[in-house]
Formats: sequence, C-alpha cells, structure tokens
Amino acid sequence: MVPRYSRPRMTAIWSPVNRYRIWFEIEALACEALAERGEIPEEAARTIRQRGDAAMAMFSEADVARIDEIEAETRHDVIAFLTWLAEKIGPDSRFVHLGMTSSDVLDTCLAVQLTQACDVLLEDMDAVLAALRKRAQEHKHTVTIGRSHGIHAEPTSFGLKLAGHYAEFKRNRRRLEAARDEIAVCAISGAVGTYAHIDPEVERYVAEKLGLKPEDVSTQVIPRDRHAAFFCALAVTASAIERLAVEVRHLQRSEVREAEEFFHAGQKGSSAMPHKRNPVLSENLTGLARLIRSYAGPALENVALWHERDISHSSVERNICPDATITLDFALMRLATMIDKLTVYADRMQANVDSLGGVVHSGEVLLALARAGISREDAYRIVQKAAMETWSKLGTGEGRSFRQNLEAAPEVVEKISAEVLDDALDPARHLKAVDDVFARVFTD
Amino acid sequence: MVPRYSRPRMTAIWSPVNRYRIWFEIEALACEALAERGEIPEEAARTIRQRGDAAMAMFSEADVARIDEIEAETRHDVIAFLTWLAEKIGPDSRFVHLGMTSSDVLDTCLAVQLTQACDVLLEDMDAVLAALRKRAQEHKHTVTIGRSHGIHAEPTSFGLKLAGHYAEFKRNRRRLEAARDEIAVCAISGAVGTYAHIDPEVERYVAEKLGLKPEDVSTQVIPRDRHAAFFCALAVTASAIERLAVEVRHLQRSEVREAEEFFHAGQKGSSAMPHKRNPVLSENLTGLARLIRSYAGPALENVALWHERDISHSSVERNICPDATITLDFALMRLATMIDKLTVYADRMQANVDSLGGVVHSGEVLLALARAGISREDAYRIVQKAAMETWSKLGTGEGRSFRQNLEAAPEVVEKISAEVLDDALDPARHLKAVDDVFARVFTD
Amino acid sequence: MVPRYSRPRMTAIWSPVNRYRIWFEIEALACEALAERGEIPEEAARTIRQRGDAAMAMFSEADVARIDEIEAETRHDVIAFLTWLAEKIGPDSRFVHLGMTSSDVLDTCLAVQLTQACDVLLEDMDAVLAALRKRAQEHKHTVTIGRSHGIHAEPTSFGLKLAGHYAEFKRNRRRLEAARDEIAVCAISGAVGTYAHIDPEVERYVAEKLGLKPEDVSTQVIPRDRHAAFFCALAVTASAIERLAVEVRHLQRSEVREAEEFFHAGQKGSSAMPHKRNPVLSENLTGLARLIRSYAGPALENVALWHERDISHSSVERNICPDATITLDFALMRLATMIDKLTVYADRMQANVDSLGGVVHSGEVLLALARAGISREDAYRIVQKAAMETWSKLGTGEGRSFRQNLEAAPEVVEKISAEVLDDALDPARHLKAVDDVFARVFTD
Amino acid sequence: MVPRYSRPRMTAIWSPVNRYRIWFEIEALACEALAERGEIPEEAARTIRQRGDAAMAMFSEADVARIDEIEAETRHDVIAFLTWLAEKIGPDSRFVHLGMTSSDVLDTCLAVQLTQACDVLLEDMDAVLAALRKRAQEHKHTVTIGRSHGIHAEPTSFGLKLAGHYAEFKRNRRRLEAARDEIAVCAISGAVGTYAHIDPEVERYVAEKLGLKPEDVSTQVIPRDRHAAFFCALAVTASAIERLAVEVRHLQRSEVREAEEFFHAGQKGSSAMPHKRNPVLSENLTGLARLIRSYAGPALENVALWHERDISHSSVERNICPDATITLDFALMRLATMIDKLTVYADRMQANVDSLGGVVHSGEVLLALARAGISREDAYRIVQKAAMETWSKLGTGEGRSFRQNLEAAPEVVEKISAEVLDDALDPARHLKAVDDVFARVFTD
Repeated sequence: MVPRYSRPRMTAIWSPVNRYRIWFEIEALACEALAERGEIPEEAARTIRQRGDAAMAMFSEADVARIDEIEAETRHDVIAFLTWLAEKIGPDSRFVHLGMTSSDVLDTCLAVQLTQACDVLLEDMDAVLAALRKRAQEHKHTVTIGRSHGIHAEPTSFGLKLAGHYAEFKRNRRRLEAARDEIAVCAISGAVGTYAHIDPEVERYVAEKLGLKPEDVSTQVIPRDRHAAFFCALAVTASAIERLAVEVRHLQRSEVREAEEFFHAGQKGSSAMPHKRNPVLSENLTGLARLIRSYAGPALENVALWHERDISHSSVERNICPDATITLDFALMRLATMIDKLTVYADRMQANVDSLGGVVHSGEVLLALARAGISREDAYRIVQKAAMETWSKLGTGEGRSFRQNLEAAPEVVEKISAEVLDDALDPARHLKAVDDVFARVFTD
Repeated sequence: MVPRYSRPRMTAIWSPVNRYRIWFEIEALACEALAERGEIPEEAARTIRQRGDAAMAMFSEADVARIDEIEAETRHDVIAFLTWLAEKIGPDSRFVHLGMTSSDVLDTCLAVQLTQACDVLLEDMDAVLAALRKRAQEHKHTVTIGRSHGIHAEPTSFGLKLAGHYAEFKRNRRRLEAARDEIAVCAISGAVGTYAHIDPEVERYVAEKLGLKPEDVSTQVIPRDRHAAFFCALAVTASAIERLAVEVRHLQRSEVREAEEFFHAGQKGSSAMPHKRNPVLSENLTGLARLIRSYAGPALENVALWHERDISHSSVERNICPDATITLDFALMRLATMIDKLTVYADRMQANVDSLGGVVHSGEVLLALARAGISREDAYRIVQKAAMETWSKLGTGEGRSFRQNLEAAPEVVEKISAEVLDDALDPARHLKAVDDVFARVFTD
Repeated sequence: MVPRYSRPRMTAIWSPVNRYRIWFEIEALACEALAERGEIPEEAARTIRQRGDAAMAMFSEADVARIDEIEAETRHDVIAFLTWLAEKIGPDSRFVHLGMTSSDVLDTCLAVQLTQACDVLLEDMDAVLAALRKRAQEHKHTVTIGRSHGIHAEPTSFGLKLAGHYAEFKRNRRRLEAARDEIAVCAISGAVGTYAHIDPEVERYVAEKLGLKPEDVSTQVIPRDRHAAFFCALAVTASAIERLAVEVRHLQRSEVREAEEFFHAGQKGSSAMPHKRNPVLSENLTGLARLIRSYAGPALENVALWHERDISHSSVERNICPDATITLDFALMRLATMIDKLTVYADRMQANVDSLGGVVHSGEVLLALARAGISREDAYRIVQKAAMETWSKLGTGEGRSFRQNLEAAPEVVEKISAEVLDDALDPARHLKAVDDVFARVFTD
Repeated sequence: MVPRYSRPRMTAIWSPVNRYRIWFEIEALACEALAERGEIPEEAARTIRQRGDAAMAMFSEADVARIDEIEAETRHDVIAFLTWLAEKIGPDSRFVHLGMTSSDVLDTCLAVQLTQACDVLLEDMDAVLAALRKRAQEHKHTVTIGRSHGIHAEPTSFGLKLAGHYAEFKRNRRRLEAARDEIAVCAISGAVGTYAHIDPEVERYVAEKLGLKPEDVSTQVIPRDRHAAFFCALAVTASAIERLAVEVRHLQRSEVREAEEFFHAGQKGSSAMPHKRNPVLSENLTGLARLIRSYAGPALENVALWHERDISHSSVERNICPDATITLDFALMRLATMIDKLTVYADRMQANVDSLGGVVHSGEVLLALARAGISREDAYRIVQKAAMETWSKLGTGEGRSFRQNLEAAPEVVEKISAEVLDDALDPARHLKAVDDVFARVFTD
C-alpha cells in the first residue's frame, strides 16, 4: 500500500517485527503446553520463553536481515526464523516447533494479525458512526430534496439521509464483527491436520491464550473460506463508503452546492484554475472503495486449494491482507473526518427544494385527487400535465408555479378545496416520520 | 440461466406469475392495513382481496401478455400491473397502491423471492451435508495420503477429508442463514422513504404477514448493501463447491484413481475415445462456481446508488438474482448426488500411500531423532538424505525403501532403536485423532 | 439473458438450430475434405451433404427434442447430435466425424457463433458512432461548461464532449475488430491436438470455407486466452457505454437540466409522482455495463484449463457467450437511439456557464497576471481571493461578479488593462480549437 | 507491492525520482515549444532546462522531503513540485506550466512510465518465449500422455505441449504491444481539453520528443479506456502464466512425477517433512496470476469518470500501476527461469503413457473398426468394453492389456487384421504432425 493512504497503527500490524513476535509467541505457548503435558522439559520451556522474549524485545533490523539471509539459503521463511531463534535460545531450541508444521505458525499468526486489524477497523467504524450520528442529529429537521434517478422527487431531511448511511454502517459493523469471528481461529494440527505429532490439547492451549478458537477441521491450513468471507465483508463496507462519498460529490456539484468538503487555508484546488474547490476527499474514497472491493476476487479464488493445501494463496495474502486492511482503515478515518467537518448549506438545500416551482408535491396532489374520487388514471393525467407545464418553463421567467397550474385545472378546482390543496403542498408532511425513524435507528 | 443448469423449483420462484402473485399480495395486505386504520373503506379492501385472489388464481399467459401490452405504452412495469389489476377489480382499485411508490412493491417482492430462494438453497445445503456426513462416516478410517503442494505429505483418512468439507459447508449454511436475514426486509415508505403518504404501521403490518422485518431506513429502495452481502455469501459457498469439485477431479486423475464419479450405463465419456470416463460433473461444478462468484461484482457495484436511488441496479438484478440462485441450487444438488454416489477405491488409496517407499513418514522420524538429542539441523539433513535417495529411485526397481535407507545411516542406528523406528513408521498414528475431530464436527 | 434486454437477431445466433446448423456444416465440410483426399468415398460425402442439408432445412423443435432424448442417455451432446444425424443420413453416417473429437466441432462452432455475434456488434457500434457524430456536428459550437470533479472548470462545447465519446467508441470498434480476429480460429486436430487421426489439410479446408484461420497449436480445444481477450474487449466497451450514460444522467439532473432522454407520449416516470421524467435509459445502460464487465472474470478464470483441457469452461461459456453478446448488442442499440433522440437544452447550458458569476475564467486571468510579471504564487492568491468572494455570495443577491471583484483588486488594475481583462474573460477562446480536434477525430 | 515479489528495474520506474524527472522533462519540453513559438523568451526556456536538469541530476531524498512539505500545505502534488522547481530555477519559473493543467503533466508522465514498464515486460516475455522454445525443441519428440479431464487421452509430445504455451505467450506479446500503443499518448490540452491557453503545437512537440502520440480528444485527462485495455492485456497474460504453472504443478504431483522444479542445494521443502520437494514456484505464480487479474476490475471501473474527469481513478492507479507491472515483471522472470531449469523425467512420461495397458489407443481402434465397416455405435460398444475391462483391473496383477482384450473380441478379430491392429496401437502416429506444427509456430 502506498504510504499516502496508510496510517501507522495499521501498518505496524503488518510489519516484520509484529509478525515475528507473534510467531515466537505461538512457538513459546506451544512449548508451555508441551511442558505442561510432560512432553518436553519444563526448564526448556522456561528458557525458550525467557531468551525468546529477550530476543524479541531487542529485535532490530539486523535480526530481520539475519533471517532474510538464512531464508535466502533455505528458501523457507519459517525455517529461517526458527534457525535465527535457535541462535538466540541455544540447545533448548530443539524443543521448539516440535510436532508442528510451518502453517500452524503462519496461519495462526495471520489469524492474530487479522483480528488485530479488525479491532482497529471496528474503532474506525465507530468514528464514522459517531460523525454520522452527530451530523444526523444536527440536521434532523434540515429540509432537503430527496432525489430518485437524480431527479427531484419529494422533500426529506438531511438528517434522515445521514441516518440511512448510519444504519448501513451499523450493518457493516455487524458484518465486520462476524468477519472477525470467522478468522479468529487457531490451527496447530501438523502436516495434514491429523495431530499425528502433537496433541489437540496444545492447540486448545495456544488458542485460548491468543483469544482464538481451535479450527474444527484444519488441513495443513486453516480453510480459506474464512478469509474469503472476511474480504467480502470488507468489500461490502467499501461500497458503503462509496455510496456516501458519491452523495457528497453530488451535493458539492456546482449546480447543487448543498454541501462542501472542508477546504483548508492554503489549499489549492487546481494548479490552473484558482476558483476551484473540489470534493477530492470523497473522490479519493470512491477510488479506494474500488481497490478494497477488488481484493475479494483473489480471496475467493484462494479457497479451492489443492488437497490438504497448496501455497498459491500465500502470495495473494501477502499483498491483500495488508493492502485491504490498511486501505480500509485509511478510508474509514478519512470518511469520519470528512463527514465530521462537512460544510452543510441548509439555505441552498431549501433553495433547491423550491427550485422546481412546487412540482415535487405532485404525489400528494395525486392522492388528494384520488381520495376525492377521481380515478388513478385521470388524476395522474391531470397532475402530470400541470407539473410538466411548470417544469417546461423553469428559468424562463414566464412560467407558473405548480399550484397556479393546478388551480387553472377545472377538475382540480372542482374536486378539492383550497385547504386540501394547501395541505397537499405542505412540506411538513415529509418530516413527520423523522422522529420515529431516528428512534429506531439511534437505539444505543 | 440455461435450462441445462436449472431446476424447476427454483425457476418457478423467478417466473412472472410468482412475481405478480407477490405484488398483488403486497398491495392487498397494504389495503388491509389501511382499512384497519380507517384510511380506506373495509369493503374496498375486501373486494380488492377477493377479486384479486380470484384473478391471480386464474392468472395465465394471456394476463402476462396484457400486462406487457400496457407496459409497452407506459414504460413502467408496476403501473402496467396496477392498470391490469384495476381491470380485474373495478372502481375500488383506486384504493390500491395508495401512498406507496413502485419500489415499495418491487423491493418487498424481491425480498420475498430471495427468501424463498434461500429456503430452497438451505435445503440443498442440507442434502450436501447429509451426503458428506454419510460418506465421511463410511470412510472414517479409510487411510489415504494427505497431500500438500500436490506432493504426498502424511497419511490421513478419507473420512477426515470429507469432514473438513462438511465443516466448510456448515459454515456456509450459517453464512446463508445470515444472508437470508440480510434480505428479509420490507419497505413501504413512499417515494423517498419518509412515509409522507403512508403510515409506518402499514409497513409493519405487511412485513409481519410476509415474515419480513421493516427496513430501518429505506430511501426509495431497500439499501443494496443487503443484497451485496447476500451475493457475497453465495460466492463464498461457490468456492466451497469448487474446492470439493477440484478434490474429486484430482482423485479421479488417471495416475491417482482413488475415486470416480458414478458412470451411468450407456454413458459415453468421449466421442472419439471409448476408454474415457471423465469427472465431468465436478468439472462442470468448477465452472458453475466461477459463474456464481462473478455475480458478486455487479452486486457490489449496485450499492452506491445515487441519492435516494437510481435504477441502475434493476437490470443487474433482473439477471443475477435468478441466475445466481438457480445456478447455485443446481450446483448444490449436483454436488450432493455426486458425493453420494462417488465410487471410492480404498485399495488405490492404500497403494498410493505406499507408493513412495515410506518417505511420507519422514516427519515423525525427524521428531524421533530430535527427541533422541540430535539437533534439528542435523536430524533434518539425515532424514532428507534418506528420503531423497528413496525418492530418486522410485520405479526403477533398484531403490531401497525409506526404512532401509534410514537403517543404513549410522546416526540413525546409533540414536534410535528399531522399536522407536517401528513406531515412527506406524501409519496408525495418523488416524488417532479422527474420533476427536469427528466428535467436534458432527455435533448435531 | 432476460428477453427484456435481448434483440432477436443476436438471440438467433445462440439458438439450438443455429448451433446444430453450424455443427452439421463443420462435419459436412470435413467429409468433403476427406473425400478430396480420398480418405472416404466421394459419394458418401455427397450423400452426407445432401441429406444433412435437407434435414437441417426442415429442422424443427421435434429434432431438438430427439437430440435431447439421445443426450439423456449418452450424456454427451455431440454424440447425441451425431446419432440423430445418422438417423437422417443412413449408413454413410459412419464417415461422419472420422478422426475428429467433439471439441473440434464445439470449438469451431463457437468461433463461428462469436464471429457472427461480433459482426452484429460492429454494426451496432457503427450506429452508436453515427449518432454521436451527428449530434457532435450539430453541437459543435454549443457552449457548455466543462467540469472537473463535478465543479465548473472552463467552458467547452457540447460537440467536443460528444467527439470525445466518439473517439472512445472508435477505439472500442478497433478493439472489437481485434477481438473478432482473436476468436476467428478453427481447430480440427483430434483428441489432444496431434492430428493423429486426421490430416491438418482437413482443418485448413474447413477453416477456409468458414472464414476462419487454423489454430496454431490446439490442445483438445482452442486455447481460452483468445476468448478471455474477447470478453475483455467487451468489458472495456461496456465501460465506454457507462461513461456516456453517466454523462447523460448528470446532464438530466434536476439542477443541471442541460439534456433529457426522449420522453414518449404516454410514458410515466413514476407511479407515485406524476412530475417525474427520469433518465431511465442511461441508468439502465449503467447497470447493463456492470453485467457485461462481470463476464470478463470467469472468462479469465477459464484460461488455465488442466493439461490438454478440462471441461470447466463449458458451463461458463454456455452462459456468458450468449449473455454478454446479447446484452452488449441491446445496450449499444439502446445507446445509439438514446443519443440520437437526446433532447439538448442549449439555453440551459449557457445559463449554467454563466451561473457562477464568471469565476470559470480564473485560469486565463491567472495567466494574464503571470504574463504581466506577477509571480505564479501571488497571481494565484489574488485570483483565488476574487473568485472565492464571488462564489461565496452566489444566489444571495448581494455578491459581485468575478470581473467586479477583480477590478476591485489593486494589483489587477495596476498590472493589466481592461482590454486584457476583456480578452481573459472572453468565452470564445474555449472554442477556438474545436475545428482542429474535429478534423482529427472525424477523419473518415 | 511487497519487496519479495519485486525486481529493482521495474520498481525504479515507479520511484519518486523517476516521476519527478519525467514531470520536469514534460515542463521543460513544453517551455521549449512555447519558446519556439515565441510565447515565452528563449532565454527563459534555456534557463529552465539548464537549472532544472541540474536540479534533477542532484535530486535526493531531501528534495522529496521538501516537495512533501509543500504538498502538506497546498494539498496538491503538482503545485508542490512546481513550487520546489521555482526554488531551483528562480524568476524564470513563472514561464513554467503556462497554460497547462496538472493532469497534462500527470497523465503524460503516467504514459511515459507505463511505456517504460511495457518495455521491460516485453523483454521479460522474450525471456519466457526463449525458455519455452528451447525446452520445446529439446523435447520435440519426448512422448508423453495427453490428458483431457485429467484422464489419459492419447499420447502427444512434451515439446508440443510447450509449443502450445509458446504460441499463447506469442499472442500475449502481441497483446502487450497493442496495450503499449493504447497508453503511449500525450495530452497537453488544458483544463478541459480545449487548448484554451496553450496551442496544440505544444502537445505535438512534447509528444514527439517523448515518443508518444497526441491524444485525439482529451478531457482534462487521457481517457481511461486506454488504461483499462492495458490492464486487461496484463490480466490475460497472467492467466497464461497460471495455465503453465498449473501444468507444472500437475506434472510434479507425487503420482505423476514427470517434471520437477529445480531444487536448490540447501533448500528445504517443509519444516516438518524432510522428504518434501514442492512446486512452490509454480504455486506462487498461480497466486500472483490471481493478483494481476484482480487489477483489471478497478481499472475498468475507472473509465466512467464524471464529465471532464473526477479524480477517483487516481488512488486506484497509484496502487495498481506499480503493483500490476511489478508483479507481472517478477512473475514472468520467475516463470522464465522455472521453465529454463525444469527437470524433465522422460522415462516417467513413457511409464505413464504405458500405465493404462494401452487403452489410450482406443480412438484409433474405433476408427479402424469403422473403416472396416462396423457402425459407429457398434464399434464404440466393442472398444469401450475392451478398454473398461483393462482399466478395471489395473494394478491388480490380474488384468489383460487392451490389445489382449481386443483380440478376445470376435468382432475385432473378424474385421481387422493383426497388421491393422498393430498400426492402430502404434504410438508413432501421435508424433507425425509435430514437425508441421513446430514449423508454423516457431517461425521467427
């Protein structure tokens, strides 16, 4: 992932030092379990823990280099690490990794890293939810036009819009929690998952210490459907980011101007056009969403490994695990800030509601006519005609409002009173359910 | 979806008649709710229900044609249906669809269809689980070679292999249940989700009758993150199908011959080569899995609709909703049958276990040497050497078994006894945990 | 593909009768070639041709049913067809399919169908190009605002916008021609591509008669990289459709109103809101583009078939070949009509150009100041300030135009004359290169 | 991209220093063109060139840091660079970037980088082609079994297999050349592509100097269909890599053992099982292919930018441009080496050909019977029966060879002579076309 779109907290999870620390932790815990079972000397387990802890505490770039050097010969990363560890621990190192296979370490480590990453993402999600809740409450009754097909439909409130996004992010938070459960599993089951050389008790011990569950049936690896489900949850979340980003981009369009991303002092929108203030954050988020979605593809292709495993998933995961979590972390926090600081122009929202001469109330007028006994077909024709007349002369200075056109229609005048028409054209109707909806969404 | 890969039960869910029946049900239920609230005459609601039920009971191709004819003029499918319905119901039809918007009908209908589809898929899944469980129990102790990287690793049991697939399908069943929950929602909230012309009570009433939950915040539509999550669950399941299909394809390879798809009397494997019996079912499933996975992409792109909705998702869903559920239904049932009838050659499994002269026991010998005090590095070198010597002469008639090569190594003879070596080379070790694993997997 | 998004001409290409006709043609041509080489009796080849032609000419649903019946037993589609054909031809049928394998027929047939489909698509493309060219010429000098980031940037011409789309579709036409070349290949090379039972001359003969090239190296099949490249070309074209559709959707937004899809008499935009006229065609095209793009995924996964072929690609292609070509055919023709009939509101375009008080000329003013010797940094600050002041008071009735704000800036007045300012604010500058660009784009 | 899968030559193309050098080159060339046209002083253009060249020659991390610092304030990368450049050039810097927009620099630079990357990839491709050609020639007549569906079909030659992959990579080389043409374009056309502030001659000048073509119609950017087509070409190539990698993985399976990746001295296949030699390179390539394919998705989504551009493509491209080219470069070179050094076991290939008792000749026997006047149906039944009998007793020590079973069938003995049977069972038939095929593939 490019540094531009990375935050240190997430990047650290994917650093070599974090990986090696977790590897050591897994090996040390397995030794403790073996010692408890009397399969290796307790003294050895203690030595391994103490010297290993010490080595990891002082772990530096020199150690990374040494491990890389060994790997260049053995062409095997776990063996390289174990060899380095043996140099630090001494003879007792022969009790390390006993009965385990590399994937026991690699997959359990990945589970730890992914749960660490998830915990950060869940916090990010809370920041997004907090920003959305705050702005939704603030604009609970800010009237704005609802649009379907990009065409003005009926009024709504800006708070209600945001409440919808809040509800979507709450769903995604739940999906992310489920995704965390999916990958929070431990496997220490040996070469092909038969526990031939190590007792299932060791797995249970290590799992519990690491806050994981033992895998039901591992092959050489933890099955990759878990990881595929994880990346799918990220992909769905990315699309939620995109939906909100696209909304902001629309609202900031020059013709709409209902909201604007915060523009920093000193910021320049364009090298050539000094008048520009562009919604670059939400555009950027739109692009990042495409990236995050794209990782689900190879994750799904990773599931069908051959027999008890092939290693084709590995190169994929070395890329997409950091890339997806780092990008999503960055995107969620960028989104939270962007929403939190979004400049909202309530007056422009009202101006846009009014800009079509009132035709946005055509739906309620249709109902009023229907209630007055006009058939759906006839009522539709009458209202459509009045609305189209207003619409077609918008901005010409010659047109009449929707109300005026309705009042010029004999069927309307005949069938419904001025009071009924007043009521049909009253914007208040569109906000009356907002309290109800807020009550069911903002429950916690 | 091509008929070749369709089953009638699922296809029926996506037929026009099922769709129109659900549309009518939604409209009729909404009328009942409005009548209960006194917003329309009870008599009208009763008439609508009776005449509508009668019309739907006699619904024929002629009705489909009539609706199509109206749509050709109005270019709006729901209006076309309502116009047809009015022809059947008469004047009281003016109380139908009051305060609702087309998407209220369309999206709630889609929710019903998708839950119907899910229920079929869950039954299919149970058939797959039953077949896997049966064959797993049958081959609980059938020894077979475990393979990593396509290379013989250590023995395992064929039942354990199948148990792993069983566990994966159980996870997918849970994912599918969660996916069903995701899309089992109802929205009757009007043009932009504000309930401006209809009370939330109507939505609650209709939802309850249809076995759905009211959507927390709808725009004009039910938010598409729900559907995206649904299709992702299908995609993950497809990958599980592929993993099992690829396993069978491998087992049927001419060089492996450990299992074979059932070959019907009269079946021809190849037009040109009469000797062929090909794993065409599992190859077919591999391809179907690609298709099912591919639907997740457009479903994810559907999420970011503009403002309160645009209709770009519609053409996508008209295709992928039937295609994905019909294909997955077909694939799951084909898989269930294929597993159920799979011919398993236990003797070939044993022959393959033995075919590498015993080198598949290298792991336990390594451990035995380590336990005897030889360093990991030295032990590895000794065992690797013995194994490679055996391997390199396989099939030449000149080689020695792994045991023979080990016994020719002074360090081995010196450090471990014949009993220890016997034990290290004993295949029983690899089945000892099978009971444990079965106990945790086949819990229900 | 759903009938709603299908046109008969393309659908016919994928009908059983077309497929069986091509199968017969391939078999008959191969017989002719074998007869020419003296490998089968000339008389037999003639009989096969005559009786087969007669059978194909009278081919009906009953024949399809008979073939299906045979396939139900043999579980092999080509064998079923050959058996049916034998029933029609009599004893000479034993000379049919001699030395060939099923894939020789299947893959060569698919090549014919895909080239037929390509020819339709190329015609569709010409319709799109013609519509774009016509409307581009018509609006060559229609001033409209150019927008980057959805924010007004500088004026351009609507014709130039369309010329850009025209150029993109020309590129896609070329890509489609290249894609046609990719898949216009013939393979008659036997079970694993060795010509063991049939001479390469037969392949050359059949290829030439069908307008195809012989495959360089076939396995049992024509390599699937060709088909993957084909579907990628379709995917890129789909994205071009989406780009133009999204442009139209933007232009029709209520706040923009610069263009509108043709609205038929009798058409209804919304069941609930009679005032609505929605850009449903371009929204529909946006969704169809997602579908067409999605087919590239499984096509790419189809490439890595096992050894000389597995049949996993088949179920994929039975779906995506018709679906992709039928959908793209429909989408291109819908697009051509939509562009051809698009209502363009030139007055609204001008009104939008003017709506920001002239700030869209900030770029040229910046250059004028730079030319007058002010540093880029200072000039930027001055112009940005003037533009932001205008912008911030838009619609309030209290603001000043960009020109007024510039004239109030001492550095501007001091450094550049009124004539220079006139020139910088002159919209004509933005159309001066249109002729040049049109000349290089509309070359043919 | 992770360093593990990167090669320095490609990585350098995407380094900040290369990017800034190209940015400067574009600006300097534009100044030269402007000076030639008399729009800026020749002296200034000379100063800009000289001081800029000097600054770029000494470009260091300190300069990167300075540019980053400026960007932190302006939030605009090109402005930051221009400000830094102004510090190096002095007052004449006001003639830099005159009439241009940031994207003129960014997109033209990206075109240069992508063509540089392409040139490396084309060289890599040549290495793959060379390795394949060498090994194909070497094994032109090495008999091996051809497999369809993973089942032995008929013999072929290992050289012919490789020739097929060679032909596929030749096609991909051509696709890559076409992709290079797609993106080798230059745009210097200003804010929305109208050349309002800069003459098209400048674009022509810069394009020619950089070896690019001017874009036909640019908006603010070079249209992204070009880049989408580029990434699709990479995706198709990735699938070719996967196909060859999967072939090798199959050949190295323990039961097949026909080929093996080179195993380095000191290499360890498994931490737990010293006997393992795994096809890790080809498995790794399989995973890398998934990654490379996945980049096509977001590239296709990047096409439909809003109006004259939005910047959503930028974050995508900052990732996928380096990631895709670096990964493909690495993968191609790994593949070239892997093929070049592949250990081929011709004796095992022959053993596998023979392992099914001769049933792999069933096709020619079928033809011989047909030629002898037996109907296709009857001949098929006879041959299938003989083959299945042989097959079903493979490895039991009790079976008879295919020939023996044929000779026991009265219809066979009656209809065809021993000579004809000899001929039908002669493996030579399967290699007779190899010379022909090689001649048409290895033309250059």
